[in-house]
Amino acid sequence: MKSTFQKYGYREIQTPMFENLELFTAKSGETIIDELYSFKDKGNREIALRPELTAPVIRFYVDKLQMEPKPLKLFYFGNCFRYDRPQKGRYREFRQAGCEIIGTSTPEAYAELIALAYTILTNVGLKDIQLSIGNLNILSSIFKTLKISKDKQKQLIPLIDKSQFEEISNLMQEFGIKNEEVENFLDILQTSNIEKISNYIINDDLTKKELSYLKEILNLLEKSFEIKDYKIKIGIVRGLDYYKGVVFEIDAPVLGAEKQLCGGGAYELISLFGGKETSTAGFAIGFDRTILALQTERYQFPLEKIDVFIIPVNIETIDKSIEVTQILRNNGITADIDLLRRGMSKALKYASSINAEKIVIIGPKELEKDSVTIRDMKTGEQTLVKINEILKVVK
Amino acid sequence: MKSTFQKYGYREIQTPMFENLELFTAKSGETIIDELYSFKDKGNREIALRPELTAPVIRFYVDKLQMEPKPLKLFYFGNCFRYDRPQKGRYREFRQAGCEIIGTSTPEAYAELIALAYTILTNVGLKDIQLSIGNLNILSSIFKTLKISKDKQKQLIPLIDKSQFEEISNLMQEFGIKNEEVENFLDILQTSNIEKISNYIINDDLTKKELSYLKEILNLLEKSFEIKDYKIKIGIVRGLDYYKGVVFEIDAPVLGAEKQLCGGGAYELISLFGGKETSTAGFAIGFDRTILALQTERYQFPLEKIDVFIIPVNIETIDKSIEVTQILRNNGITADIDLLRRGMSKALKYASSINAEKIVIIGPKELEKDSVTIRDMKTGEQTLVKINEILKVVK
Repeated sequence: MKSTFQKYGYREIQTPMFENLELFTAKSGETIIDELYSFKDKGNREIALRPELTAPVIRFYVDKLQMEPKPLKLFYFGNCFRYDRPQKGRYREFRQAGCEIIGTSTPEAYAELIALAYTILTNVGLKDIQLSIGNLNILSSIFKTLKISKDKQKQLIPLIDKSQFEEISNLMQEFGIKNEEVENFLDILQTSNIEKISNYIINDDLTKKELSYLKEILNLLEKSFEIKDYKIKIGIVRGLDYYKGVVFEIDAPVLGAEKQLCGGGAYELISLFGGKETSTAGFAIGFDRTILALQTERYQFPLEKIDVFIIPVNIETIDKSIEVTQILRNNGITADIDLLRRGMSKALKYASSINAEKIVIIGPKELEKDSVTIRDMKTGEQTLVKINEILKVVK
Repeated sequence: MKSTFQKYGYREIQTPMFENLELFTAKSGETIIDELYSFKDKGNREIALRPELTAPVIRFYVDKLQMEPKPLKLFYFGNCFRYDRPQKGRYREFRQAGCEIIGTSTPEAYAELIALAYTILTNVGLKDIQLSIGNLNILSSIFKTLKISKDKQKQLIPLIDKSQFEEISNLMQEFGIKNEEVENFLDILQTSNIEKISNYIINDDLTKKELSYLKEILNLLEKSFEIKDYKIKIGIVRGLDYYKGVVFEIDAPVLGAEKQLCGGGAYELISLFGGKETSTAGFAIGFDRTILALQTERYQFPLEKIDVFIIPVNIETIDKSIEVTQILRNNGITADIDLLRRGMSKALKYASSINAEKIVIIGPKELEKDSVTIRDMKTGEQTLVKINEILKVVK
């Protein structure tokens, strides 16, 4: 993940594990306190373990980085905390990888951001992911056209978020919206056809402009970034109400109900923290859930291996064995030596338990010839090798 | 640091950012609470942000790893927290790298542990470090011979820790210890001559055995690990009273008063946490203080660089420019593209601010010839390169 962020020109940022509580309530409202590990420190300050990293990064930007050349591309990898009922893929302490791009709102910037999130998840080895792209300004203007008030939106949004179409339909009819309009809205929530969406909002010039901007992004994403496997989903609402404009999500269908791996989009937060507002966008990837998705897809995680395990045949050869071990280590080879003065068979068993690929056996007979015995653990083949040629053989 | 730990056969372990408060009071006594970020969570559990990582690692060992083949070599890198007055090289949130080796107490195990700590600090680029090695069992038996009670030891130890020899002398005379014995003791605290120490404890067989064991370790350290630059310091007491036997410290004299970078040794903790006692040793390195020492030594930290910065000459070449950027990124090159549709001079200024090494300029004229212009930022040299040859040129 880190290496993909870096290839896209992002630089790592690290922020403290806790912040003033008000940083998170300012961003997400007082209700977030229920989900936080918050406490008073010995100086009676209200602090909270960070539940996410966007607010800390933007806080740091406002404090220290406002004068940096734009765009500023920052990525992070860190632990976050949420006081929540732990369940599969949702832990009280969890890890997030993510990024923020500050100071640009060109279509190519958003297309690159979406491409980056998608590329990170394919680069780590996931085979089946589903990218959905929406736009909150378009959804907002649809709400406006349908005369759905902010209060009513708050009832509707959780249902849209969960794609509960029957419940959406019932609630909208309760709101007094005509059956035909409800049906059309449900159609738009479920279509990935941009022309259909375009026809639906045909009478709203501002929204048409927003849509043509979205088209530009999608065009770059397909043609230049070569990411063609996505859906348009106008019903992406995201939990947070600070998002504006383009939003996107990436799911791993293999995970079932808790399938969302990544969420992101354009948002406004800088002025809330006292900085000069400039375009910002970003995304966060649930690291633990990504691992879970890889496991479910039966991804072969690399085994931790030891290149060489050295066994001194008796106490007299320990010093020489250490010297050989150090030659290997100093030349970039992962080497370990028996530190328990065990007999050969026990030492070999240990070597196998730590996945040693080669064994170097060092006894008095070998040392008489300035040599050691090298055994390949896969083939079982043993060869006598001069100590000054050991590097050549092992490499 | 990570790569050195791994070359020595250590495997990374990650533990939670907070633990039950009692884990740390069990290890260090109730007084540690004053130095902790501790609080009650919403379930009324007393928890504490971890002040160090040995207790969490051993807690995890007792819970989950007791059946693993021995020795178990574990390293960590993590944030820790201390409610303390922040000062240079001492932060409230700080980072520690360290390791524990569980299940062996052979001289080669201790020699390797000390060699590893020393090698990590030289490998990161430090030029001037000072290794001191002591043994708490020898110090304890000296206290016993001098009939200094545990209570009196508690008064004496902080003075020994700070090498305040005049104060040590005064206090010992207060204790009623003869002048000559005080002088001899001060001599032993200040000598690095193992024969002198040996003569001093001549009448104590158990301590002589401990000393000969220390000699074995030092012998391996010098001859097999080739680390000759150390001092013996019987006065190493360490802040923690759970250490037993071999102890060591590594200082960076360049840092003045707060010069200690690393501390470690053999300790007993497993049975305290309910596990089956087995030999354990380890060390911790202050990461932030190591950075500070490197800075003070004027170490040249590597600049963060961008291999290639791509500038589309106008809006029409953006799509093709992205394609070129993606070719580079997909082939392991760190590449960024202007995302603000700037003019050439502003884009070049930005490229220079992010330390781009090469610039790729993509305009309609170049594209007519399926080519791009590559500029080397150091030499200023510009060449026209076919797009299908760009990888060869850039690499």
